[in-house]
Amino acid sequence: MARNSHTARYDDDADNSWSCGSWFEYIIVVVLSTIFLIGALVLVIYWAVQHGNGFAWSEDPQKQFNLHPVLMVAGFITLSGFSILLYRLCRCLKHIYVKLLHMFFHACAVPCVVIGFLAVLDSHNLANPPIPNFYSLHSWLGLVTMGLFATQFVVGFFSFLVLLCCEDATYSCRAAMVPIHASFGLANFMLAIATCVSGITEKAIFKLKEDYSKWTEEGIILNALGATLIALGILVCFAVRRSNAPATAKVYVTERL
Amino acid sequence: MARNSHTARYDDDADNSWSCGSWFEYIIVVVLSTIFLIGALVLVIYWAVQHGNGFAWSEDPQKQFNLHPVLMVAGFITLSGFSILLYRLCRCLKHIYVKLLHMFFHACAVPCVVIGFLAVLDSHNLANPPIPNFYSLHSWLGLVTMGLFATQFVVGFFSFLVLLCCEDATYSCRAAMVPIHASFGLANFMLAIATCVSGITEKAIFKLKEDYSKWTEEGIILNALGATLIALGILVCFAVRRSNAPATAKVYVTERL
Repeated sequence: MARNSHTARYDDDADNSWSCGSWFEYIIVVVLSTIFLIGALVLVIYWAVQHGNGFAWSEDPQKQFNLHPVLMVAGFITLSGFSILLYRLCRCLKHIYVKLLHMFFHACAVPCVVIGFLAVLDSHNLANPPIPNFYSLHSWLGLVTMGLFATQFVVGFFSFLVLLCCEDATYSCRAAMVPIHASFGLANFMLAIATCVSGITEKAIFKLKEDYSKWTEEGIILNALGATLIALGILVCFAVRRSNAPATAKVYVTERL
Repeated sequence: MARNSHTARYDDDADNSWSCGSWFEYIIVVVLSTIFLIGALVLVIYWAVQHGNGFAWSEDPQKQFNLHPVLMVAGFITLSGFSILLYRLCRCLKHIYVKLLHMFFHACAVPCVVIGFLAVLDSHNLANPPIPNFYSLHSWLGLVTMGLFATQFVVGFFSFLVLLCCEDATYSCRAAMVPIHASFGLANFMLAIATCVSGITEKAIFKLKEDYSKWTEEGIILNALGATLIALGILVCFAVRRSNAPATAKVYVTERL
């Protein structure tokens, strides 16, 4: 009974139509988030190439380090950010395709995160003298972020895709999981931003030392990267909010199973 | 018409009753959030007294600095965190009292933030040689956090308290503002956590230098403070989530005007 009324909600185009203001907000969110998500990746790649001498694997631990910020921003910010937002913003596709795209973007983030993690471990262990691991707040936050990401990915995959095989029997279980998955997903994205911000601060102080306070180009680029990530955090918090309007009026992210 | 059905929702105790699981979750959230919110404040005070030699005003700029982390954690984390959570968790008071308490806690945070900001400015300017201001990512994030906090405070005060004087005429306006105020409020709390985390990283590297990697007590306390703040971020994101259940079943934060 509840199921039917729920399904019917999405079929009712009249109830689901948007006002001009909603469309304006929608377009602003899509444009700004695309600019910030790609902008963050461009900034970190520019920094790695221009100020870190590019990339390498274990033959050059200093250049290998540069893979860490680039791949972590690509995985945890750009791909995960697009994945979160397309779930909220994709209005024209069938819901199962949106779910698969959501999972696909997160799946693409997995190798980025794994290689980015190995790159920093290698670059620390192969440095001369070796740099200690897991003592800093940044590394602690990184471990929590990766753990929560892995948990969300596995739980999300089983709850919302595998359990679909017996759609009706698992409906109430999936329905209960949606707000939990959505809130932990948002927490994970904000946690990734906090981890990035602490990593940027660490790098800026370790590398630039007293030059950091002299407004050098490298310092400004690192700060601009941090500011872009913070702008993204605010934008994503705003984009995935839920309306007070009656449930029939709009389809928001956490209302969809 | 919409107004009446909305008001009626909160008067219907049968619809608003909670299951055993919901009460269990509620108690866990209340207990853990209280521990973490007070724990963060205790940790930062312990750090300032034990490792920073206590507090002073401009007669001793080094001790004056210690007021900055303590007052910022008190204002942006402990008081704001209690303010956010009591809005979500206070189920027994009349809604207007919950609103007034929400504003009262945020109002108490204002002097903490102002004095904390003046303390760091003074301690930088009066140091010998003076320490430059506003060059680091932490300071940029701090300015954005304070700006968003001030905007939220002013908009919240006018929208949800002053406009109550003409309750019915402003209902739809206030209803539209609720999810925006709630999502920017959550973003502001997460932003404050990211700012704290970058500040802790800055302080640990500037003060401890290579000792940071040697697991000294001070380094562990600073990391534990950062980890507590991150645990709080995840907990608050979870606590203010909204249910998928019918709107009549539970009263969540962003449903209340």
